[in-house]
Amino acid sequence: MSSAIYQATCSAPVNIAVIKYWGKKDTTLILPTNDSLSVTLDQDHLRSVTTARADASFGAQDRLWLNGEEEAIKTDGRIRRCIDEMKKLREAKESKDANLPKLSGWAVHVCSENNFPTAAGLASSASGFAALISSLAALYELQPEVSSSELSRIARQGSGSACRSLFGGYVAWQGGEQPTGQDSLAVEVAPQSHWPDLQALICVVSDAKKGTPSTAGMQRTVQTSPLLQHRIKEVVPERMVKISEAIQKRDFDTFAEITMADSNNFHACCLDTAPPIFYMNDVSRAIVQLVEELNSANEAEGKGKLVAYTYDAGPNAVLYAPKANMPQILQTIRHYFHNADFDDTFDLLGKGVNASHRGAQEALGLPLSLPSSFNSNVIPVHEAGAVRRLIHTQVGDGPRVLERGAGKESLLNENGEPIRLQRAKRA
Amino acid sequence: MSSAIYQATCSAPVNIAVIKYWGKKDTTLILPTNDSLSVTLDQDHLRSVTTARADASFGAQDRLWLNGEEEAIKTDGRIRRCIDEMKKLREAKESKDANLPKLSGWAVHVCSENNFPTAAGLASSASGFAALISSLAALYELQPEVSSSELSRIARQGSGSACRSLFGGYVAWQGGEQPTGQDSLAVEVAPQSHWPDLQALICVVSDAKKGTPSTAGMQRTVQTSPLLQHRIKEVVPERMVKISEAIQKRDFDTFAEITMADSNNFHACCLDTAPPIFYMNDVSRAIVQLVEELNSANEAEGKGKLVAYTYDAGPNAVLYAPKANMPQILQTIRHYFHNADFDDTFDLLGKGVNASHRGAQEALGLPLSLPSSFNSNVIPVHEAGAVRRLIHTQVGDGPRVLERGAGKESLLNENGEPIRLQRAKRA
Repeated sequence: MSSAIYQATCSAPVNIAVIKYWGKKDTTLILPTNDSLSVTLDQDHLRSVTTARADASFGAQDRLWLNGEEEAIKTDGRIRRCIDEMKKLREAKESKDANLPKLSGWAVHVCSENNFPTAAGLASSASGFAALISSLAALYELQPEVSSSELSRIARQGSGSACRSLFGGYVAWQGGEQPTGQDSLAVEVAPQSHWPDLQALICVVSDAKKGTPSTAGMQRTVQTSPLLQHRIKEVVPERMVKISEAIQKRDFDTFAEITMADSNNFHACCLDTAPPIFYMNDVSRAIVQLVEELNSANEAEGKGKLVAYTYDAGPNAVLYAPKANMPQILQTIRHYFHNADFDDTFDLLGKGVNASHRGAQEALGLPLSLPSSFNSNVIPVHEAGAVRRLIHTQVGDGPRVLERGAGKESLLNENGEPIRLQRAKRA
Repeated sequence: MSSAIYQATCSAPVNIAVIKYWGKKDTTLILPTNDSLSVTLDQDHLRSVTTARADASFGAQDRLWLNGEEEAIKTDGRIRRCIDEMKKLREAKESKDANLPKLSGWAVHVCSENNFPTAAGLASSASGFAALISSLAALYELQPEVSSSELSRIARQGSGSACRSLFGGYVAWQGGEQPTGQDSLAVEVAPQSHWPDLQALICVVSDAKKGTPSTAGMQRTVQTSPLLQHRIKEVVPERMVKISEAIQKRDFDTFAEITMADSNNFHACCLDTAPPIFYMNDVSRAIVQLVEELNSANEAEGKGKLVAYTYDAGPNAVLYAPKANMPQILQTIRHYFHNADFDDTFDLLGKGVNASHRGAQEALGLPLSLPSSFNSNVIPVHEAGAVRRLIHTQVGDGPRVLERGAGKESLLNENGEPIRLQRAKRA
């Protein structure tokens, strides 16, 4: 038994799909009914961080803490499957090199935290499972022999869309054909550096009622929506090709057109479910109408689209736009949706990076300037709080190894227990 | 020239589709992209009434008044086309019988009124064009030689769904194959008397914003929605067969299931349009959720569905249910949507037929009794006015000839001008 500490800490990003994943053909292996494509968002703003340690002293039991709370690792559960698959890869590596410590035989302690509050309305399962897989891959020193795509195949079994968070930039999840799921994995369409100019504005929309959970909802759609079958067979394959080309060409107009169409197509299939599934509410729809008006007024001036919306399984809008358009978009959103908490990650207000601003409409250094034919009555100015919070971010890179070994990034203390949990105990 | 008065007054009903019409393959002839099927509502409650008179003294100009306002009859317009087609049928009749007065050569004066306010949120074009065609058919004494289906072919060119208002009961609009539109007409699936037990509750939903007009909206869907093509080719044909069978069997469960699925499928195609078209709002969706909960709680007791919803191109719900279920449905709707104006057409409150009640929740002679597993938190109790008005009606008969000649039903005075207009002038 070695006295060395075998540990790694990684961070992983959130991704927001522009071609949506909805429906599984295998719910255990998480094999999707169609391909999907996403943009990875910047970890400097939104991320999951995970520390994984293997130690012979941990006994037989793997343990996992999520945001300071221990989570049971259920036999046959998704976390179990991910850890087991990673141990198998380590075992294969160890079997080729007798000098390696036999980490695959030891229990692991895993501690994971998200830097974004639940209130942000963002699913944490994608970044969370990507950080889990990345930290175990770093702990087990699996890369570069094991590719990120191979890791994504395992992350997929934790949470489908997690496979896309194994890459930065523009990422496709190839649904695959094989019943084993061997070919169901993520691939990079283009790295962040190919088109770094794309920014995202997350509009967190207040919603009284919790919608249908996506896991249950998507299978109900598979079982009851006649339109979903058409989406799977005809609509998505063509869009995957076209949006990949648009990304290669940095063609924002086409990218925006397909992104908006696919968001609407996905929500149409939700509505076509029996009973119907509603994720977008009246505020979500008002944002759609505002964006469509902005775009059509800009197009009336012979220019392209300014911005694209997309909605996941909830009422929040994610707006994608080239960096240059963002001040205008922010001004417009803040005009129609007063009092939105604004995470000023790019310091547009000059009050310091990552400041959060609440309350009065603050100037963004630019007067509100709209395309000349813009119909300002397209939607009413909403009551304060209809959009609860704005998060401004951009396309980002893939998972990062923050630290190998146990240093200042570690979420585990010397005993392999969560630092946060320990602090809570002391308090 | 005869000194007799050639005039007829007819009423025609509203119809609400359960398999929706959305999209034209010929916008001039109004040839639909798919078949549709509707329930005709009772004219005792909602109707258009039209008086048509032909007189040699009217000169060359046909004239038409709608709710007291004269409407221009545009060359190449839909009203023009309908009147011309009816004159052709009269001409054909005259050519076979030289004794008939040559009404086809005279101008007509047409006066039409709806008994339901615009505020009821009901499209009046279907009942309006059906009443126009029916009154001209009575004036020209075309029936029974000319069938109601043949008349429906002409009404269709006024407003697509008007063709279905030429029959009572359960009516299919067969889209047809011929480019001339010869085979695009309405047929009776079952008369009112076959299944008279079906009632309707129209929930008029407040909406700040006027939605996309259906004429423009449907063609945008045809041009941009990939899902609509699937709806046209695969979804509707199967549903037309199944719901016709359900009507034959008076099988409310199947009728309700298909009605709700098709409403959702239609609105899904609207959402799949670029830019998307939204007709349902948060209140519309709350009614869907309430109905789904009522049905699933009733099914949990081993019984069938209680009620079905359907939504046209607007936020209003039309709820269909067997008569026996209506008091419970009314109680439930009035519990969650306070202060809805209620047209008590069946005198459930015992205060007189056609009384309209506003204000406090009034008992309907029954305590609020819900299926035992009903989740009363499925939607919140809404603010007063979210549902503005409730109209309770039932399946009804086809167009009625109220009067041949000029008597008490006439909307035209002795000079062939609107009686209402004359009164307004006097006032």
